[in-house]
Amino acid sequence: MTTLLALFRRPEGGDDALATFLRRYREEHLPLVAGTPGLRATRVQSVTEALGAETDLVVITAMDFDDRAALDAGLASDAMRQAGRNLREIAPGLATLLVLEDAPVD
Amino acid sequence: MTTLLALFRRPEGGDDALATFLRRYREEHLPLVAGTPGLRATRVQSVTEALGAETDLVVITAMDFDDRAALDAGLASDAMRQAGRNLREIAPGLATLLVLEDAPVD
Repeated sequence: MTTLLALFRRPEGGDDALATFLRRYREEHLPLVAGTPGLRATRVQSVTEALGAETDLVVITAMDFDDRAALDAGLASDAMRQAGRNLREIAPGLATLLVLEDAPVD
Repeated sequence: MTTLLALFRRPEGGDDALATFLRRYREEHLPLVAGTPGLRATRVQSVTEALGAETDLVVITAMDFDDRAALDAGLASDAMRQAGRNLREIAPGLATLLVLEDAPVD
């Protein structure tokens, strides 16, 4: 399994800006992501606390693909390209995109 | 579902230090975590890339509990307390622990 993990920082502008981002993420971005070929599962979670620390992260989304080749094909798809453009509009500079692979600690 | 997400940064000391951390994480830490009451699933993944950026993250582990109360009970357990002590030994200052909740974007 290869996972594309998107970590979103809190936008500037207080609770209104956060609410706007979350609404557009749900209404615009996630439907685009859902059309990605090879996407096996999507898990969207909100960050409610950092134990013993502060965090500027507000949402973390895991998108699972069968393997790295499937992820690369998904990233090159029209759906993901549109999702990328949307992301630069609704959360400019706020997202970190990590590629994760299972079975890492050997 | 409530998830405890542990993000681990690369230790100083190059590849040898990273290999030592990964070995101790696998051999010492994960067996302690596995004994946590209420833990429903554990998913360990390595960070292989950050798209369009650099990252100092090397491992991300998701630990799922039924809800926040179950997580809090798990955190207070002997198993998790031992795991916490172990973590401060094998990865001092390298872990960020986030609490995540499903259904965040409403």
